[in-house]
Amino acid sequence: MDKFMQAAMEEAKKGLSEGGIPIGSVLVHKGKIIGQGHNRRVQNGSTILHGEMDALENGGRHSGVFYSECVLYTTLSPCPMCSGAILLYGIPKVIIGENKNFMGEEELLRSRGVNVKVIQDPSCIKMMSDFIETRPKLWNEDIGL
Amino acid sequence: MDKFMQAAMEEAKKGLSEGGIPIGSVLVHKGKIIGQGHNRRVQNGSTILHGEMDALENGGRHSGVFYSECVLYTTLSPCPMCSGAILLYGIPKVIIGENKNFMGEEELLRSRGVNVKVIQDPSCIKMMSDFIETRPKLWNEDIGL
Repeated sequence: MDKFMQAAMEEAKKGLSEGGIPIGSVLVHKGKIIGQGHNRRVQNGSTILHGEMDALENGGRHSGVFYSECVLYTTLSPCPMCSGAILLYGIPKVIIGENKNFMGEEELLRSRGVNVKVIQDPSCIKMMSDFIETRPKLWNEDIGL
Repeated sequence: MDKFMQAAMEEAKKGLSEGGIPIGSVLVHKGKIIGQGHNRRVQNGSTILHGEMDALENGGRHSGVFYSECVLYTTLSPCPMCSGAILLYGIPKVIIGENKNFMGEEELLRSRGVNVKVIQDPSCIKMMSDFIETRPKLWNEDIGL
């Protein structure tokens, strides 16, 4: 696992240790992490702070040119909201930890020209499947079920 | 203009009076506003609090069944991020103030079964066109340009 996915994983673990949903993300600009975050549904009572959204929010305000030089790393396949944020800001590349536990809008992203890479990392898969097994109701809420 | 679009418009005006981008939204459940908000890019330095996102966030945590009984009102056609949030939560109906100044992901929403209605309200159109003319750079940032 490369250092950026490792950083996303650390965010996910932080979320889990806070009693939250273990999904983490980092936004990388020219080889440097400029935003990182994790799902905050439980911690903040938030419906919009998925891991990717938290990373984007913590990354601060930027121009489209800046985002066009970014790569977003996330431990889980991005849901419609997070995929929409990727499209809004024109982030050209997304590295995904796994999509075995949840298949997000990867096809939509690809159809709009985003370079989507799924690494199917065993530790990402296990972290999420353990969580879903333990907290199915909370997980369903997070994906709008 | 019906009372819910009026409430979204009031949110947009509040945002403008704060020095922000005038886009407002309300989330309505069975005829009652349960979340309302406006764009907070300037006010909070936020990249994710578009009007619709702010309304969803302020509306609090709910199940998919609850969202399936909701209608989202927004003064402007929803961008990819906000449209993605609508899809994530399965909000079945969206009423849009106008799409003359910005065409969001209406076709994507319709293709996924969302009932999308655009009212082309003259006051929504004027508010946004005046703003874009006055603050083009800020507006471009908000739509990822």
